[in-house]
Amino acid sequence: MSVYAKRREKLYDWMARESIALVIFEDAEKRRDASVRWLSGHPHDAMLFLSVEQKSLLVPWDINQAKLFADVDLAVPYSEFSRHPLMAAAGAAEQFRLPKGSKVEISPATSYPSFLKYVEALDGFDVICRERGIWAETERLRAFKDEEEIGIYRKAAEITNTVIDLLEKHVRSGKIKTEADAAVFIEIEGRKRGCEGTGFETLAAGPERSFGIHAFPPYTGAPFGGKGLSILDFGLKFAGYTTDVTLTFANSPAAAQERLLALTERAYRLGLSMTENGRPAREIAAAVDALFGKSKKTMPHGLGHGIGLEEHENPQVRNRDDNEWILEPGMIFTLEPGLYDPVHGGCRLENDILLTESGPEILTKARIIRL
Amino acid sequence: MSVYAKRREKLYDWMARESIALVIFEDAEKRRDASVRWLSGHPHDAMLFLSVEQKSLLVPWDINQAKLFADVDLAVPYSEFSRHPLMAAAGAAEQFRLPKGSKVEISPATSYPSFLKYVEALDGFDVICRERGIWAETERLRAFKDEEEIGIYRKAAEITNTVIDLLEKHVRSGKIKTEADAAVFIEIEGRKRGCEGTGFETLAAGPERSFGIHAFPPYTGAPFGGKGLSILDFGLKFAGYTTDVTLTFANSPAAAQERLLALTERAYRLGLSMTENGRPAREIAAAVDALFGKSKKTMPHGLGHGIGLEEHENPQVRNRDDNEWILEPGMIFTLEPGLYDPVHGGCRLENDILLTESGPEILTKARIIRL
Repeated sequence: MSVYAKRREKLYDWMARESIALVIFEDAEKRRDASVRWLSGHPHDAMLFLSVEQKSLLVPWDINQAKLFADVDLAVPYSEFSRHPLMAAAGAAEQFRLPKGSKVEISPATSYPSFLKYVEALDGFDVICRERGIWAETERLRAFKDEEEIGIYRKAAEITNTVIDLLEKHVRSGKIKTEADAAVFIEIEGRKRGCEGTGFETLAAGPERSFGIHAFPPYTGAPFGGKGLSILDFGLKFAGYTTDVTLTFANSPAAAQERLLALTERAYRLGLSMTENGRPAREIAAAVDALFGKSKKTMPHGLGHGIGLEEHENPQVRNRDDNEWILEPGMIFTLEPGLYDPVHGGCRLENDILLTESGPEILTKARIIRL
Repeated sequence: MSVYAKRREKLYDWMARESIALVIFEDAEKRRDASVRWLSGHPHDAMLFLSVEQKSLLVPWDINQAKLFADVDLAVPYSEFSRHPLMAAAGAAEQFRLPKGSKVEISPATSYPSFLKYVEALDGFDVICRERGIWAETERLRAFKDEEEIGIYRKAAEITNTVIDLLEKHVRSGKIKTEADAAVFIEIEGRKRGCEGTGFETLAAGPERSFGIHAFPPYTGAPFGGKGLSILDFGLKFAGYTTDVTLTFANSPAAAQERLLALTERAYRLGLSMTENGRPAREIAAAVDALFGKSKKTMPHGLGHGIGLEEHENPQVRNRDDNEWILEPGMIFTLEPGLYDPVHGGCRLENDILLTESGPEILTKARIIRL
């Protein structure tokens, strides 16, 4: 049984327990849903229908690509439904001979106006759209990486680490002089080593721009690696899965900049020391916030987040009331403390952690590099 | 008055006519809304509140960046609302002293579960979420580029055309040999000339992969420009606005490939000849579909689309019942006929057209290049 069929099986069980007859996933522009790829292997632009009768139907935008990538019971081109999601949904209900009155669950990302249209198009069925339904279950399952995924991550991390070493070398030698030099270097070296690309737009912010959490534009022709603090945040995507690391280059840092760096490194070590199975993720983030607070500093973002087919997945590692995630084996997530000062610039240190039965394994080797 | 204030003024008029007291825009991960930038200058990650009293409030994720980019009446950091959209919304209602019972309009992209939460958080107000409301009006207004935007597009097109010429030169000379060579070249040359980056991930598909409408991965280390058909689809983003062009490189095409190329060029000329003020956009797309149909070919995507702060904006230029767009002066859109064959590969020709009072002006110079 393929890895995709195994994943679907878990959802079929859940559907049976919850009496859901049909689930509709959609991956489309502005409504990206990586669960389609996770469940079918098809990398993008498709609707995926799962029936409680344990059948899967993919409706891809590009049937030629589906033939190459998709592992499903049946694939029907989107054009057969006039490229319209509501027609595809009605078609799937017919294909699966869904009894009237059956429960059909749609994504909680479905807009309110679209929800009303689904209710109309699936007249006679019970359309369900909720946050704590099958999407939450799918995203919960995706937080636990299976052996295939962990194998992919080891490879992705290996490439990322090679590129980190090369970046350090070339910033030191002066071959990488600008933000664009760094960003383009990552694109080239990652793809050369078999990556699909970067997992998100690389953020390279030289000393003049590192004060921004997410500098805008993400990279420019501005100098990188000169006197002060430069931030480089990137991920490489291998077989669908992205790493996410941040390096800080500190060139002759002034005393105030040294304090930012030292505090960030201390926060990183604190976070790592608390990372263990059974720990509520929120506790770690709260401890780091408290550490920064003692120095009258505030970190304007969460401490970390799960990674996977998407840049931001579960578990959340942030200090918010509604964060109920407990760290468990199989989870892969970032720890990324950072501090940003409008005058002195910013620094961030981010690595990817795999939690195993025997504790945390730091997959990536990002660091603060003193030039 | 700034260009942003002028744009907001048009919406205030509309709000007054429709008795909408407050409008809430949100640009966030997975819920991108370029209207925030269009209305405030702030490039990303923020909520924007417009009150019918003609006041604007920006709640940015990064207040340091807002100070540099935003042109609004008031900016308050997101952290003051515990980085929570519902708290920011309630805060804005308080800030503007909104009378109970007032109408508050939220984006039609708001999910059904979030809609219910907004209704709860804005208790006492009338929360409106509809497709044909202020979002449709904002997107309608964005389809008509003002002088500032047309100026930006002339510059973006100039850079794009320079890069197109360089691409042709380097594919011919053999300096560009792989898909990644072509894609990375565009990144570097665009940014070198002042672009923010590419408007979307460049799609470079060599002869082995050009059969896909949108090849996956978008580019790899595979050969580009060798015998057969290679497609290169890219856009350069200048001051927020993206171009969108597609070149096809045809190297010693076989007879079947020549037929695809000739038919695509014919479709492009037909589309262009029908492009005029007052013409329903759907008519052009229907004529091209009919032309392809006569040769028993099907184009698996729309003929074109508006461009702007986003890759896909209004007007739509597609052959669908619900496409009611009429072409008018100030619109900038693509024409991009293409044909894809699993055996012979694909070809597409795409340029950006500005419609002026005196007719269409082809801004970009993409072409089918025979090697």
